[in-house]
Amino acid sequence: MTLTITGFDWVPDFAKGYVRDLRVRWACEEIGCEYRMDLIDPRNKPADHYARQPWGQVPTLDDGGVEWFESGAILLHLGERSPALLPTDPAARARTISWLFAAYNSVEPWIFQIVDVMLFSSDKPWAEARRPSLVADAGKRLDRLVTALGDRDWLAGDFSIADIAMITMLRDDCGTGVISDRPALVAYVERGTARPAFQRALAAQLADFNPEATAA
Amino acid sequence: MTLTITGFDWVPDFAKGYVRDLRVRWACEEIGCEYRMDLIDPRNKPADHYARQPWGQVPTLDDGGVEWFESGAILLHLGERSPALLPTDPAARARTISWLFAAYNSVEPWIFQIVDVMLFSSDKPWAEARRPSLVADAGKRLDRLVTALGDRDWLAGDFSIADIAMITMLRDDCGTGVISDRPALVAYVERGTARPAFQRALAAQLADFNPEATAA
Repeated sequence: MTLTITGFDWVPDFAKGYVRDLRVRWACEEIGCEYRMDLIDPRNKPADHYARQPWGQVPTLDDGGVEWFESGAILLHLGERSPALLPTDPAARARTISWLFAAYNSVEPWIFQIVDVMLFSSDKPWAEARRPSLVADAGKRLDRLVTALGDRDWLAGDFSIADIAMITMLRDDCGTGVISDRPALVAYVERGTARPAFQRALAAQLADFNPEATAA
Repeated sequence: MTLTITGFDWVPDFAKGYVRDLRVRWACEEIGCEYRMDLIDPRNKPADHYARQPWGQVPTLDDGGVEWFESGAILLHLGERSPALLPTDPAARARTISWLFAAYNSVEPWIFQIVDVMLFSSDKPWAEARRPSLVADAGKRLDRLVTALGDRDWLAGDFSIADIAMITMLRDDCGTGVISDRPALVAYVERGTARPAFQRALAAQLADFNPEATAA
């Protein structure tokens, strides 16, 4: 059964290689699952896309007519296909799913705010004043992540969907240093992004951006 | 097998009835699952609590020796115990889990920021300047939620873990109007919080705060 993933056929340069379908492509590459892309133009989204994704975002997944949205939910679904991404042992499975949610709810909300202050809202009057306490608070949160990771390579034992989520969130700190100043996180991201499956997923996303649309 | 949930034995008055173990208690009440509470003092957390929850937060769940953290992960685990909270039909299950992640990653990060600006950081120099665009952006996001909910009672068909997550996130907008100005969301929250299982869970959380600790 072929999987169909939605992605964008164009994004601004800063977003190339960072759109969230990358997470789903990476999971597919890890478990050797073929997929096809349904590419849409984010500047001119088909009206019916909102029926698949309430906020008009990507990715969504169609798996044999069953439709999923939210990259975290899709990672969980793909994890159920293979113990290579989600172990079946109850304790390891609980750790993995707990860390998956931690990435989405306890870490990424801070990264969202960093990206907002440093990129999307950097010209707003409040952004500069907001930055120091945000960077300090995000740093404290990431210090706890460093402690929890300890000397392990991956969050929950073996490499898993939790690492795909967390590592794709930690690839860029927009120059704030919240990640780059923490060697354990830099090494963790490097371990993940060195995996051949990540490299294939990244190349595939980059290749799918329409050069004509980019030039437009 | 008894479930053990961690909660706090004291919180500031504004947080009473809003601590996240409420979500897990609510799910237990819906499916008739007995649980015991392991109450800790957030002002003096046992050092080993960080081994259970990387940020020292609650809830965590111990289910027969298998340990979970993150309320979203725990809701998913409890959903797996009963089709009353997580349907087994593949399409309905996909919708439910997608909406569960949507609550945690596409809605709650905005609520976090509203609470921060209106409550925790209200005295900071950037907070007042940040508020208008945050309220506007959160409002747009919630408008999409209203559209997606349409005329249904619950997010994914029948009442589910996704509604427990979303409704507990939408109970208070800190006076910004992002929820109270949207009648469909007000009605949705009222439908959820009118459920006897929610009322029992709320009463149980409130009863567990230690009156002596509160007075201290």
